[in-house]
Amino acid sequence: MAKKIIRSIALLTGGGDCPGLNAVIRAVTKTAINVYGLEVWGVEDGYLGLIENRLRQLHQQDVSSILTLGGTILGTSNTANPFSFAVHKKSGQVEFVDVSDRVLSTIREKNIDALICIGGDGTMATAAKLAKLGVTVIGVPKTIDNDLVGTDTTFGFDTAVTTAAEALDKIHTTASSHHRVMIVEVMGRYAGWIALHAGVASGSDVILIPEIPFHIDKVAEFIMDRARRGKRFSIITVAEGAKEKGGSLTVRQTIKHSPDPIRLGGIATRLSSILEEKTGHETRAVVLGHIQRGGTPTPYDRVLATNFGFHAITLLMEKNLKGHLVVINNGQLGSIPLAKIAGKVRVIPKNHPLIQAAIGVKTSFGI
Amino acid sequence: MAKKIIRSIALLTGGGDCPGLNAVIRAVTKTAINVYGLEVWGVEDGYLGLIENRLRQLHQQDVSSILTLGGTILGTSNTANPFSFAVHKKSGQVEFVDVSDRVLSTIREKNIDALICIGGDGTMATAAKLAKLGVTVIGVPKTIDNDLVGTDTTFGFDTAVTTAAEALDKIHTTASSHHRVMIVEVMGRYAGWIALHAGVASGSDVILIPEIPFHIDKVAEFIMDRARRGKRFSIITVAEGAKEKGGSLTVRQTIKHSPDPIRLGGIATRLSSILEEKTGHETRAVVLGHIQRGGTPTPYDRVLATNFGFHAITLLMEKNLKGHLVVINNGQLGSIPLAKIAGKVRVIPKNHPLIQAAIGVKTSFGI
Amino acid sequence: MAKKIIRSIALLTGGGDCPGLNAVIRAVTKTAINVYGLEVWGVEDGYLGLIENRLRQLHQQDVSSILTLGGTILGTSNTANPFSFAVHKKSGQVEFVDVSDRVLSTIREKNIDALICIGGDGTMATAAKLAKLGVTVIGVPKTIDNDLVGTDTTFGFDTAVTTAAEALDKIHTTASSHHRVMIVEVMGRYAGWIALHAGVASGSDVILIPEIPFHIDKVAEFIMDRARRGKRFSIITVAEGAKEKGGSLTVRQTIKHSPDPIRLGGIATRLSSILEEKTGHETRAVVLGHIQRGGTPTPYDRVLATNFGFHAITLLMEKNLKGHLVVINNGQLGSIPLAKIAGKVRVIPKNHPLIQAAIGVKTSFGI
Amino acid sequence: MAKKIIRSIALLTGGGDCPGLNAVIRAVTKTAINVYGLEVWGVEDGYLGLIENRLRQLHQQDVSSILTLGGTILGTSNTANPFSFAVHKKSGQVEFVDVSDRVLSTIREKNIDALICIGGDGTMATAAKLAKLGVTVIGVPKTIDNDLVGTDTTFGFDTAVTTAAEALDKIHTTASSHHRVMIVEVMGRYAGWIALHAGVASGSDVILIPEIPFHIDKVAEFIMDRARRGKRFSIITVAEGAKEKGGSLTVRQTIKHSPDPIRLGGIATRLSSILEEKTGHETRAVVLGHIQRGGTPTPYDRVLATNFGFHAITLLMEKNLKGHLVVINNGQLGSIPLAKIAGKVRVIPKNHPLIQAAIGVKTSFGI
Repeated sequence: MAKKIIRSIALLTGGGDCPGLNAVIRAVTKTAINVYGLEVWGVEDGYLGLIENRLRQLHQQDVSSILTLGGTILGTSNTANPFSFAVHKKSGQVEFVDVSDRVLSTIREKNIDALICIGGDGTMATAAKLAKLGVTVIGVPKTIDNDLVGTDTTFGFDTAVTTAAEALDKIHTTASSHHRVMIVEVMGRYAGWIALHAGVASGSDVILIPEIPFHIDKVAEFIMDRARRGKRFSIITVAEGAKEKGGSLTVRQTIKHSPDPIRLGGIATRLSSILEEKTGHETRAVVLGHIQRGGTPTPYDRVLATNFGFHAITLLMEKNLKGHLVVINNGQLGSIPLAKIAGKVRVIPKNHPLIQAAIGVKTSFGI
Repeated sequence: MAKKIIRSIALLTGGGDCPGLNAVIRAVTKTAINVYGLEVWGVEDGYLGLIENRLRQLHQQDVSSILTLGGTILGTSNTANPFSFAVHKKSGQVEFVDVSDRVLSTIREKNIDALICIGGDGTMATAAKLAKLGVTVIGVPKTIDNDLVGTDTTFGFDTAVTTAAEALDKIHTTASSHHRVMIVEVMGRYAGWIALHAGVASGSDVILIPEIPFHIDKVAEFIMDRARRGKRFSIITVAEGAKEKGGSLTVRQTIKHSPDPIRLGGIATRLSSILEEKTGHETRAVVLGHIQRGGTPTPYDRVLATNFGFHAITLLMEKNLKGHLVVINNGQLGSIPLAKIAGKVRVIPKNHPLIQAAIGVKTSFGI
Repeated sequence: MAKKIIRSIALLTGGGDCPGLNAVIRAVTKTAINVYGLEVWGVEDGYLGLIENRLRQLHQQDVSSILTLGGTILGTSNTANPFSFAVHKKSGQVEFVDVSDRVLSTIREKNIDALICIGGDGTMATAAKLAKLGVTVIGVPKTIDNDLVGTDTTFGFDTAVTTAAEALDKIHTTASSHHRVMIVEVMGRYAGWIALHAGVASGSDVILIPEIPFHIDKVAEFIMDRARRGKRFSIITVAEGAKEKGGSLTVRQTIKHSPDPIRLGGIATRLSSILEEKTGHETRAVVLGHIQRGGTPTPYDRVLATNFGFHAITLLMEKNLKGHLVVINNGQLGSIPLAKIAGKVRVIPKNHPLIQAAIGVKTSFGI
Repeated sequence: MAKKIIRSIALLTGGGDCPGLNAVIRAVTKTAINVYGLEVWGVEDGYLGLIENRLRQLHQQDVSSILTLGGTILGTSNTANPFSFAVHKKSGQVEFVDVSDRVLSTIREKNIDALICIGGDGTMATAAKLAKLGVTVIGVPKTIDNDLVGTDTTFGFDTAVTTAAEALDKIHTTASSHHRVMIVEVMGRYAGWIALHAGVASGSDVILIPEIPFHIDKVAEFIMDRARRGKRFSIITVAEGAKEKGGSLTVRQTIKHSPDPIRLGGIATRLSSILEEKTGHETRAVVLGHIQRGGTPTPYDRVLATNFGFHAITLLMEKNLKGHLVVINNGQLGSIPLAKIAGKVRVIPKNHPLIQAAIGVKTSFGI
């Protein structure tokens, strides 16, 4: 196959926020311009900008000083899927239509030769479909949850772990001074990577993750056993997706539009009230929520994001690849086909060395 | 009155956690030993330790390296009030009895000449009662909420504001990148000091505090007005005790012991769902909770706590005072009688210069 | 006197870097536009921009998102003094000439009704001279050293103390683990405010400040006495301007343009080698330098800078003042005439309460 | 070979300070006690404690709450080598003698079955010699410089990079506001890992490392070229061991015991004065020094240190290994013989992907 000549690229960020997006944008833009003399277009608000033809050219000064900024200067959109785009009808109904032709038309109009998509599994699923339509696409994986298959890690994860661990550090002294059980809920709906790492980093006594369904009575017993040994406090790190074995502590529901809006407790809130009853220890819950997704990326994540951004352009310009995703495995940058990651979640294997080490330092997983 | 000779003091910390408690403990202990050659006793778990005669002698090495630690090495107890102490009867009933004689007996037995009580209004109310019974007491004010009357500020407040502002900084880029309304709930049940300071420090667009009941429609209008001017995101800092003018957005209830525990949304959660409906903007809430009470105190708070601890001993040993509280007013350390602060809350005056400045930089208070 | 009508202001930042400058710029600009509908001009690079007529109009979006940024978006210049401006002659000589007419001409040309000068004593001295020439000037004090007379504190100081204290925290564990004397040199040529605050905040064993000339032998004796009591390490915080009593440990010289450039040791480096010899303890020095001047301002400084910026406009628009400096005394915002601060340095009184408290917790000042 | 039964271990930390030492001590101690019921002895001050028979038993509570502390609770000694131990003679002379028999005698006396040595290459060289004498030794690698062969990384490095990058972040705004060249010297005598990572993480314009000798004129030209493109400032990150190609900018000497102690400038100070002369730009240098070795380890390093500590015990108890070092390669924990790492330094390969990426984003290495 003759190598396609690339003169112009477009760049978009999709999905939830993640520290390091701007570092990728900077690395892609600078490398594309400095090394290959490409024209670089920034797409506004993810795929929505391709649908609505909202792009702006990026020059070096546009990405100057953004390395340490959280968020994305391009904006993003969680929901805009060009293959199933919500159109609001006059009737009030919402219809989902395929507007991928609008994306293709934008790409043609702006003479864009390749598209760099930075995002999570949703963004990559769309990228894979665009690749099938003939668009030259390179993906850059993004997830603070660290649960994308095909890559050992992604930028944003180290920052999320750091934010969670620093919150846990603050909680620690309060728990200890007040002889309390403190429960901190961190992100991780399907995989417990943040909980495991932040839990070990903060010396949590209990870590609850989706991969290891827990027995609530084992957790209570562990807390009471600590108390018997003179430790009148415990710290529990719980992933939002942690599940009780055979139990009901799993539902997270929001009844929003009732006159008096009520949120059924997330896992931390519900654990808190059950454990207080079972153990007799005063118990408090904190739900970290969105602070895990924002803020200045850690130096580790800035380096990783710069590597990813640079490598995306290398895959495109040197390796003549398309429809591939930048990955890092065993410390080596590489790539895999976009199609390979669709719909899968990378969970923690039960015999993961860090779980073994955590058990070694006497952490309970509620089993 | 002949000056009482002080040879031995006891020291306790009461009430909720607050960064800087250990810095006070260190300053009191070191000054008492180094400067005045006193014997220093640390009371465990607040007044509970006086009731149960649990004290340990503190030497210099016991307070070495605790300056930067959150929490209190002495432990604390939120609820132990010797004048109304919960006794669990065999019948299962709880009876509240006056056990202040046990406190006096502990003080006599250990030959304690003066008591230093570090705590908030609850702790000071008890301290004032002990003073009336003849105990030589000096109080050191503690509240992260900054709402104690008689003193312009207390240690812990700067740390709480810093923790809240850093969380708001993280939230900012996500709000901006995702065109969202982000609501961050900070502590402050009766006074909005943390919300006001953290809100201004983080450039929040809206600040809602108990002192200024807000109109929900004014808040929604402000957000939509920003959107019309191209600012598709807004940050709201709300004190937990903020109140809707004439409205119902005030209740914070917990139905704990239902089979399926349900927490009625705090103010942030409830604001979130109402504003999303009124403005059409995606809205998210974060409740910071206990992370505001923990962690390493800021250098500002370490200095203030050291000043307070040193001054407490000075009041006792140089000024021959008792039944007084260390305070700082207009930058000057001083003291006021314990009795003067009972049952009052220092709220933000509506014409406070920082409110004026906040309005100057176009912050809305929902009015 | 008839009140001058103000329709347009210009804003400049002068002197060394200081965290919070951008926060002042933001507060001045937003308040001027939002509250008074003024036109705002940003002067580039301090007085140099007035001499060279380099100004740009500032709108609200220009100061959006700069609250947390260190540095100044306007640029600054340490040396440009319009009353004594260095002109490089063809002969190679430098001549200092009065170019204040160029400043006045710029002000006239741009129709600027008032000038807001943010800076230290040098900037204020020039501002005072411009005021004498009839320019309506308001000053905003800036010094990380906290040594401006007339105001109890300025923005930037809390950030500098925090940076220094955090560095000292890091040093602490190394000193303790390695049984070393660690010396940390902080800023403060004429006044020891940073050293005193950071020293107390970090629990330094010795604090050396310009206000209290030290005896090197007292310092050595203190360290050896600690060692005899089992404390095999010491932390010394020294202000760059600390002086040995009657001694020679004061010179800081740089021989720059020698072929092999040599820097005579600053006070920390020289103390290090003398104390190692006198005490026999391994000793290391760290000079913090410019990191104290940069970075994100602390929330405390952001609030203070916002107050200062807002108040500067208030003085101008509400109080009809000119030739005045914003100050804060005893916690109250106010103003003093610019002329009053010229050429003076606010040093620490020897009986300052924090010195007393430091001595109370057994800190040596080398006396 | 029959498996030796291990009932008791001793644990020591050697060499320079490194964040994460306490996290290893905690993981080793907890795992040894919890999982294998071993007796654990902490050796004071590195090999010195083995020579002088200063050990204390470690229980779980002794390692509680040390996870986040910098330094080492065991103390360390940079210089104590039992195979060449400095003995001070009465004559004033120092003689180096082999006192390894004292080490063996301590081990016998305390019934220690295995020794865990945490340290750098010096510590490991001694450990290898003890292994040859029949001592069961497991090594845990420690170096903030990241330059130990056999392992891809070690704990402490991420913290050192973070400290350096945060200092560079602070420097950035000052450089930009003042149109200066700012030079920051970081650790790395033989390898530039910290400089490369912190330099990329902070967006440094120039990175100078020992592995790539630089041309001073290329650096000057790069700075002037930036100025021509409107970037009137530059940030240079330089490793302490960076070398000028064929040049003299390499010496770091200290003339300590002269009456007026003089330190020949480190590389940053000397670069500063040369570049100021060559470019005409105001230039400032900062030498970070020991703050890179201290402080709370990052969550990344706490996790790594916990893994290392747990794995050390696993190697000993499950794999029946001795004379081996814990390593991590391609993300996998493993081990290599101690003898393999002696006297080697792991330098950055010139084609390292991060160097490529750095060049991609237009960083100069002075070549």
